[in-house]
Amino acid sequence: MLEQMGAAAKAASYKLALLSSREKNRVLEKIAEYLEAQSAEILRANEQDLAEARENGLSEAMLDRLALNPARLKSIADDVRQVCNLADPVGQVIDGGLLDSGLRIERRRVPLGVIGVIYEARPNVTVDVASLCLKTGNAAILRGGKETWRTNAATVKVIQQALEECGLPAGAIQAIENPDRALVNEMLHMDKYIDMLIPRGGAGLHKLCREQSTIPVITGGIGVCHIFVDDSIEFEQALKIIVNAKAQRPSACNSVETLLVHQRIAETFLPALSKQMAQSGVTLHADDNALTQLQSGPASVMPVKAEQYNDEYLSLDLNVKVVSGLDDAIAHIREHGTQHSDAILTRTLSNANRFVNEVDSSAVYVNASTRFTDGGQFGLGAEVAVSTQKLHARGPMGLEALTTYKWVGFGEDTIRA
Amino acid sequence: MLEQMGAAAKAASYKLALLSSREKNRVLEKIAEYLEAQSAEILRANEQDLAEARENGLSEAMLDRLALNPARLKSIADDVRQVCNLADPVGQVIDGGLLDSGLRIERRRVPLGVIGVIYEARPNVTVDVASLCLKTGNAAILRGGKETWRTNAATVKVIQQALEECGLPAGAIQAIENPDRALVNEMLHMDKYIDMLIPRGGAGLHKLCREQSTIPVITGGIGVCHIFVDDSIEFEQALKIIVNAKAQRPSACNSVETLLVHQRIAETFLPALSKQMAQSGVTLHADDNALTQLQSGPASVMPVKAEQYNDEYLSLDLNVKVVSGLDDAIAHIREHGTQHSDAILTRTLSNANRFVNEVDSSAVYVNASTRFTDGGQFGLGAEVAVSTQKLHARGPMGLEALTTYKWVGFGEDTIRA
Repeated sequence: MLEQMGAAAKAASYKLALLSSREKNRVLEKIAEYLEAQSAEILRANEQDLAEARENGLSEAMLDRLALNPARLKSIADDVRQVCNLADPVGQVIDGGLLDSGLRIERRRVPLGVIGVIYEARPNVTVDVASLCLKTGNAAILRGGKETWRTNAATVKVIQQALEECGLPAGAIQAIENPDRALVNEMLHMDKYIDMLIPRGGAGLHKLCREQSTIPVITGGIGVCHIFVDDSIEFEQALKIIVNAKAQRPSACNSVETLLVHQRIAETFLPALSKQMAQSGVTLHADDNALTQLQSGPASVMPVKAEQYNDEYLSLDLNVKVVSGLDDAIAHIREHGTQHSDAILTRTLSNANRFVNEVDSSAVYVNASTRFTDGGQFGLGAEVAVSTQKLHARGPMGLEALTTYKWVGFGEDTIRA
Repeated sequence: MLEQMGAAAKAASYKLALLSSREKNRVLEKIAEYLEAQSAEILRANEQDLAEARENGLSEAMLDRLALNPARLKSIADDVRQVCNLADPVGQVIDGGLLDSGLRIERRRVPLGVIGVIYEARPNVTVDVASLCLKTGNAAILRGGKETWRTNAATVKVIQQALEECGLPAGAIQAIENPDRALVNEMLHMDKYIDMLIPRGGAGLHKLCREQSTIPVITGGIGVCHIFVDDSIEFEQALKIIVNAKAQRPSACNSVETLLVHQRIAETFLPALSKQMAQSGVTLHADDNALTQLQSGPASVMPVKAEQYNDEYLSLDLNVKVVSGLDDAIAHIREHGTQHSDAILTRTLSNANRFVNEVDSSAVYVNASTRFTDGGQFGLGAEVAVSTQKLHARGPMGLEALTTYKWVGFGEDTIRA
């Protein structure tokens, strides 16, 4: 079955690659229209998914994440309309020139082809990924969380109606409906058809893809992010940034997980931190050198376990470690970080420069919250994933990351000397 | 052992990333100097490799490829000096700006970190890869062909002396000396230390890497390249390009392997082709529709076997197939090509445009030889590999392909709203 889906997606991708921006926007507008006009079937499927999820004892928070209603569907449709307004990178000439040989050459931006996306149980992601792929002339094979397979199937059916209405093959956007996990493994080996694989989910999924996939994979989304509080920063400013980075949205991958505090200010800063974190409802996990001073404040504090430096909390929990200085902080980040987002809070220019140059992460910040690592915040207009690997795309991936380039050579019966 | 090499390479990569272009060029000049001044040990090791290769019955052509002498070493050293003259992409600001949030952001080009290269038994590649990696601030772990392990070890020892003379860690460039194949498999799983893996070799090595590696891999170098001879091209011009594409260097991956001839000109073109190919010493493998007319000429002709459309000859052999037109030609290339280099010879503008847009290869040509797909020819100054995958880099990979970028955000105690 997947073999057929792959072949259909590849065939569709050849057609999509030739569309103008206007033609692609026409499809997107049609999708937005149909999502609203044909919401009944999607909502019915979603109710069935929700009923099953309830039976399976999913938490209320999880159920809320799965649930659709007319207002949410309208918001999803509006997001598709927003994608129409984004600049289309396809067709852009990156560079080029006339070579000594007489060959005129250019690098032209083209779609990747077929993109495979494996994602969590979030119904909006189906539409989100489909619209970004179509905008960049790519076909997509989607495998969403098994808890929402009926919703995804109904949504993709609507998208396929819109595609066909515009004279395009339904194979351009396909969902793997069967929730069997074995199909994920099969998908990871479809290198004949899928050009890029984007896993969106936990560390386990990323590991599985890295180990098993024969398709080039973009791994990312796991953020063990750090803030180093240097000795020259004012406490009030530092605490404002730390609260933003930890408490604004603890479940986001760009939230801070570990605070590294310069030993010179530890004695005075840690009690202030404890007070602020108590107000923000943050539980602190402290190393030996931070424990006593943090416990002198009102925050909930417990000793940190070594392995907690390596994992995301995704909750109102924060590690606090006293470091001897910048070198120590950089060494800790290199050892425990996931190359996502790390920040230094400092007034010392040379330390800011060293941090920026020596911390090897997708995003490094000086006196700013790690929460900025986001396609929307970075002005990319959209985000298909956050890459923490170094090939192809790093950090927030916008439309450009869904393209590659080809070299086009124009000769006049030109041969190599 | 590999674990230690990986850790040493990663540690060295942090140091290399901070070097200025001048400092990196100083190391390269020292390497060139030492390669000449300390040639005795490299040549002695090479003699041992050659003696063993001779015992093992390697062909004279292969032995010649392995052999070094003072003139060849000087040429290798001169190549290193050439790399000094190339522009250093590291540190370049790709784009940036001031965001609405007040955060100033830029994308800054940085080294990848540690690059793993697995390559054939060519002693010059050791120096070539080392110099390109050092120029871009990367550390490298090299695993060359087992037939030249002594030569590689001696060469890397000289490179390490030059590094240490410049105050840099020897771990920056390391060779896996042990020719045991099991170490290749171990290397493919060193994702903790190696950021990018470049296999240079046959289809088997690329398949192994795609299937086994947990490190992002750049696959490529396999070129089943096509030329489509459209009905509007003059025969003389077409033959000139075909001779160049096939006979100039048949062992190169950018040489043509299959000629697709428009049926409308087959009757007159094929005899002319047969005559020209006989002169160029090319053996033709013809499909049913081309066989009779090719055999009316003087060339050596035999029926093509179906599987020969899918493999590189890397020799003076050429498939010839009659196609019904452009659509048929594009369909054949999509089915049998390796997305390396494909050309159309035509005077019809719309066909040229369609070929360029619809053939999904790294390099597509109009009225030019496929032999141009080369870093030097494309003006990249150097080439570390030719990628036929779509992520990160496509086609000839120059220095830029050995870098990634990081997002650097400068705030003034800036938080996300």
